[in-house]
Amino acid sequence: MNYGIVIKVLGKILKIEALLMVPSLLVSLYYNQNDKLPFLISICIIGIIGFIMSKKSNCKKTIKAKEGLAIVTIGWFLCSLLGALPFVLSGSIPSWVDAFFETVSGLTTTGATIINNVEILPRGILFWRSFTHWIGGMGILVFTVAFSHTIGAGGFQIFKAESPGPMTDKIVPRIKDTAKILYITYFAMTILEIVLLVIGGMPLYDSTVHTFGTVGTGGYSIKNSSIGAYNSTYIHMVIAIFMMLSGVNFSLYYALFKGKWREVLKDGELRLYLGIIFVSSVLIALNINSTLYHNIGLAFRDAFFQVSSIITTTGYATANFDQWAPFSKSILLLLMFVGGCAGSTGGGIKNIRILVLLKLIKREFSKIFHPRAVIPIKYGEKVISNETVASITSFFALYIIIFILGTILISLEGIDLESAASAVASALGNVGPGFGFVGPTRTFSEFSALSKMLLSGLMLLGRLEIFTIMALFAPITWRTPRGKSAEAA
Amino acid sequence: MNYGIVIKVLGKILKIEALLMVPSLLVSLYYNQNDKLPFLISICIIGIIGFIMSKKSNCKKTIKAKEGLAIVTIGWFLCSLLGALPFVLSGSIPSWVDAFFETVSGLTTTGATIINNVEILPRGILFWRSFTHWIGGMGILVFTVAFSHTIGAGGFQIFKAESPGPMTDKIVPRIKDTAKILYITYFAMTILEIVLLVIGGMPLYDSTVHTFGTVGTGGYSIKNSSIGAYNSTYIHMVIAIFMMLSGVNFSLYYALFKGKWREVLKDGELRLYLGIIFVSSVLIALNINSTLYHNIGLAFRDAFFQVSSIITTTGYATANFDQWAPFSKSILLLLMFVGGCAGSTGGGIKNIRILVLLKLIKREFSKIFHPRAVIPIKYGEKVISNETVASITSFFALYIIIFILGTILISLEGIDLESAASAVASALGNVGPGFGFVGPTRTFSEFSALSKMLLSGLMLLGRLEIFTIMALFAPITWRTPRGKSAEAA
Repeated sequence: MNYGIVIKVLGKILKIEALLMVPSLLVSLYYNQNDKLPFLISICIIGIIGFIMSKKSNCKKTIKAKEGLAIVTIGWFLCSLLGALPFVLSGSIPSWVDAFFETVSGLTTTGATIINNVEILPRGILFWRSFTHWIGGMGILVFTVAFSHTIGAGGFQIFKAESPGPMTDKIVPRIKDTAKILYITYFAMTILEIVLLVIGGMPLYDSTVHTFGTVGTGGYSIKNSSIGAYNSTYIHMVIAIFMMLSGVNFSLYYALFKGKWREVLKDGELRLYLGIIFVSSVLIALNINSTLYHNIGLAFRDAFFQVSSIITTTGYATANFDQWAPFSKSILLLLMFVGGCAGSTGGGIKNIRILVLLKLIKREFSKIFHPRAVIPIKYGEKVISNETVASITSFFALYIIIFILGTILISLEGIDLESAASAVASALGNVGPGFGFVGPTRTFSEFSALSKMLLSGLMLLGRLEIFTIMALFAPITWRTPRGKSAEAA
Repeated sequence: MNYGIVIKVLGKILKIEALLMVPSLLVSLYYNQNDKLPFLISICIIGIIGFIMSKKSNCKKTIKAKEGLAIVTIGWFLCSLLGALPFVLSGSIPSWVDAFFETVSGLTTTGATIINNVEILPRGILFWRSFTHWIGGMGILVFTVAFSHTIGAGGFQIFKAESPGPMTDKIVPRIKDTAKILYITYFAMTILEIVLLVIGGMPLYDSTVHTFGTVGTGGYSIKNSSIGAYNSTYIHMVIAIFMMLSGVNFSLYYALFKGKWREVLKDGELRLYLGIIFVSSVLIALNINSTLYHNIGLAFRDAFFQVSSIITTTGYATANFDQWAPFSKSILLLLMFVGGCAGSTGGGIKNIRILVLLKLIKREFSKIFHPRAVIPIKYGEKVISNETVASITSFFALYIIIFILGTILISLEGIDLESAASAVASALGNVGPGFGFVGPTRTFSEFSALSKMLLSGLMLLGRLEIFTIMALFAPITWRTPRGKSAEAA
């Protein structure tokens, strides 16, 4: 491990975090809130630490897989730890554990909160809290681009190799240009949603923070009853649609921009994603209409919003879906696992992996009758390598195993299995709310400090697609290379 | 599809079923119960149908994969349908749906019951009910041997190729001899357990039916409070240990008999299985001791019994584990998925598949640092082919998908998610009881007829390892071969 470069890059990241806190300070100054000083102090502390760390000069410049993994995971951890400063210093969240949980939840675009009454917090703090979603969403896009080569976690290779976006066509072969395109899309979506919400009568401040939560698929709201506080079908629909759009592979927007409509419409992952949203919305609408709503229009509106919110792992709510019939709740629980598309800001297992698993199962049936046939798994026109398939299946298995072990540990809190399982599925999938004990009208505040740390860890595991963060704990990561074979690694 | 041979073989199977009903008739005669006539009528009906079907002579004798699959799945279905006759005719279970559910549950060695008061039923009926477990356990051993070549579901190939049992060593290369060895083991275990239970003071009748439920990993009891009705630690321990032994790959017993102690002790699946039982028992004992028992000895006794019962998918109970703390319940729920070892009478995913999945995950971590390395997955000394690995992972994915879809459908009953999920996990894993609505002190009787049919289907899916039964619904199974390529299938 080349510690020098790791520290240096981490220092740079912290300097960026300090800079990213400036808008929140400006918001605080503009509204003349009492959180000005906490922000100023936080910016100074983070900036100085970053400055000192990045000063380290006597180190090799090479970043290999090990160093990359260390930077990514330690970076998320450090940013969460120091990003919690304003919450603690302003007294908005007095406990360090709680403030850390809230920041991890923000940066991982989860949106699970421990704040019981969010409406009394100052405007700068609320801005920062939602801005962490926006930063996190951006962060995961960088991650997607930068690490698609190194990490064998399946989804990304496919994203890189298969999607009809900038990368396959080699129009913009360099990573920096790819990143630029993703950012422009992200910015454009942000501005468009703010404008549409303001047109719908939502105040500019509210529109901005809720847009951060939407395009980052985070879900922090400045209202205790989330988006349900805005009694406007227009606003519900704008946010529902933008959540859905934020769960789509961003490179498809570039393809659209290039006029490749047909390729986008043929995209298997997009079709599966939209298909699941459509079928789930219809099933839930019919179910809640007959059990609760008795108004199919309203039932469909709320069903679609909640489906879009959960599958994209955003976590906004316009209805207390914990009160819905078990049939609808079990579908929502399933959607927490499905998640968004690869190359989006959404979390979960991702639709492309589900698609490959379904193709794998289909092939297994063919093999019963054609045992000697060699049937490749394809995505679009291209064959997916056996290695990528193995990566995807092991990701799926590990995801399920971590979900089960997490549920067992969280159930030590003594809460019912439904609450425990949904809390873990929600944290691991970066969703936000769950059912029962962590339902949409409740918070994660009642958990013990240990469980909050565990759930924070699950959010990071989910966000960094498990293998990244777990590899950091593998002995090989920290071994000093000896001889040739280690050098080759 | 060669319909002639399918009908002929099914006829033979029904004749065997009629014969297998004779012991129940004898029990009824011996105890002079009022279920004599229903058994006599049932035996005649099943025997005559079997006789007519097996008379069909003008057919080709060749059985290919298609025909094999059809015989197995239709066979289980027919045997369940006609095996329900004594329940209906005797009035013990008046509803056909309920009687079918009870028989499927028996033959698949699940042990989920719809009978609320089992203690009032006549002795012949209770004997038949438990005997279906014993037949089912035997049936799955035949299945294991006969279909290990045709079905690409992973577990069996490994069983055949990797276990240090009769098949690898080619001491007894022919299938019939292998089957014989498995049967002898099965018989020997049956007799040994009956003897040990009788020594412990359990009446011979009770010992016999509970042994059927143990060695077949079924779980039907003749007491409403299951094994808990026998207030004897000796009896609890004998049954707990025999459940555990019934979940072990039967070919290991042959290896033991041949003096290959070392190979057996090195068996990866056995180690994992015993390890899970040990760790789960300790964790649950500590948990229930601090929350409920306050007597570590009793806590460990009950924890071990319940763990052994659930992981082997038997389903006997000596405690109402639905009242245990969520931590213990979530571990038990996990064990429902793990199940027994391949080549045992236990259900679930099977330890060998879990082991391969864990190895696959481990390999994925190595690949992060050695992206170009080709690392084979091994079981013992032997490399597991990529195809077998793909079979195992798709089995796992399909198992999880069916579990989720089943839970969504069962939750239409309006019961809580914990009850619905545990009912489905229990049916699919051939366990028996679940939690809440289907807890160990309750039955499946309150479900609607549709849900009972769905759960029966899940039991068959689980028992026949999913691909077999699902392949029966694939169009290719019923297509008449045309030309050369179809003929090759």
